[in-house]
Amino acid sequence: MSTPGITVYGYSTSGNCHKVRLLLEQLGRAYRWIEVDSSKGETRTPEFLDKNGNGRVPIVELDDGRVLAESNAILCWLADGDPAAGFLPVDAWQRAQALSWMFFEQYSHEPYIAVARFIRGWTPLDSPRRAAELPRCLERGHQALAVMERHLRGQAWFTGPAYGIADIALFAYTHVADHGGFELARYPNVRDWLARVRATPGFVAMPGPAADNAALLAASVLP
Amino acid sequence: MSTPGITVYGYSTSGNCHKVRLLLEQLGRAYRWIEVDSSKGETRTPEFLDKNGNGRVPIVELDDGRVLAESNAILCWLADGDPAAGFLPVDAWQRAQALSWMFFEQYSHEPYIAVARFIRGWTPLDSPRRAAELPRCLERGHQALAVMERHLRGQAWFTGPAYGIADIALFAYTHVADHGGFELARYPNVRDWLARVRATPGFVAMPGPAADNAALLAASVLP
Repeated sequence: MSTPGITVYGYSTSGNCHKVRLLLEQLGRAYRWIEVDSSKGETRTPEFLDKNGNGRVPIVELDDGRVLAESNAILCWLADGDPAAGFLPVDAWQRAQALSWMFFEQYSHEPYIAVARFIRGWTPLDSPRRAAELPRCLERGHQALAVMERHLRGQAWFTGPAYGIADIALFAYTHVADHGGFELARYPNVRDWLARVRATPGFVAMPGPAADNAALLAASVLP
Repeated sequence: MSTPGITVYGYSTSGNCHKVRLLLEQLGRAYRWIEVDSSKGETRTPEFLDKNGNGRVPIVELDDGRVLAESNAILCWLADGDPAAGFLPVDAWQRAQALSWMFFEQYSHEPYIAVARFIRGWTPLDSPRRAAELPRCLERGHQALAVMERHLRGQAWFTGPAYGIADIALFAYTHVADHGGFELARYPNVRDWLARVRATPGFVAMPGPAADNAALLAASVLP
């Protein structure tokens, strides 16, 4: 299936942005990608703020100029647009469970696991955020991983019986949790699930961090 | 319409929990409410963690024991179960916009506006969180209110053309933003929208804080 007319504004090494790329690739949809480096202020320009007043990527823009923001809302919209692909369950209860995991991801997971990665790889080694924020990120991030580990004891996926957008949402930052200082060896079910996600048809990997970010990650030590 | 069999576990003065009560009342659905005071650790008991491993309210439990967590996922499930009531648009794009605002609420609004309220009303006056966290809560919370103010310049509601669950989600903590130290006089469109929400059929107000919380709020000064 090929549906033209979608432009994604995204930062390729952002997990939130990669969610959208991964689903578009797995749906086989055509899209244009415009790179916007949020770490360099490119989401705070007047032009970008006209598209998303909240100043964040990813966003999706249609040919007529309409814009949709929030990575997980974009996943829902794309999955709803191609029900045969099965990325969002038809059953109302299972759909709600998928949404529940996606809200969990944005409230209890991303603010700690993604933020720890950002602080270690995208702020200077002498940033006060390292001492001020990393301990809490680690504590809360481990709590989130423990919740996932517990769920995966009995189930292969987060979206009901099959791989779907809740898995994509949670994969985004879990698979690079080591960047934030999280040791995934403590979570064998999570590790196995990451491998299952990587084996799904059409899977594409998120690009590695740029050289300066990789150097910061390598130099980072736990607080 | 009356559909029995829903039990809500919630803390009545929590905006996240009140979302669920408000929609259930406006849908005219029967439900049982079990009060769980999350501020006193009641969501961290083994019994509660068996229902929601993430240890948060609200949750909805069905008669057969199935549980749904995350306030905004519960709103979606309830609204989807009664499409004639019109709380979630049928149009796919508008549905996605509603979801987008609900993810905005949980990521860019609640962690600042609700947390500021919690710190001022639910932590001791000498809590280190007041100095450590309130300034950032205020900065980010005002950013979220400004995004809402901008949207409401051109539209009456957040969920497409009519009142719906995105409005309920955003109303929850915006209408008590003053508890966190936010002066809403700066946001006239937001204030007018709050009045429109209060005037919707079947609206029920959130209970005021308990006496000890109200005393802490009254004694709180801005950092």
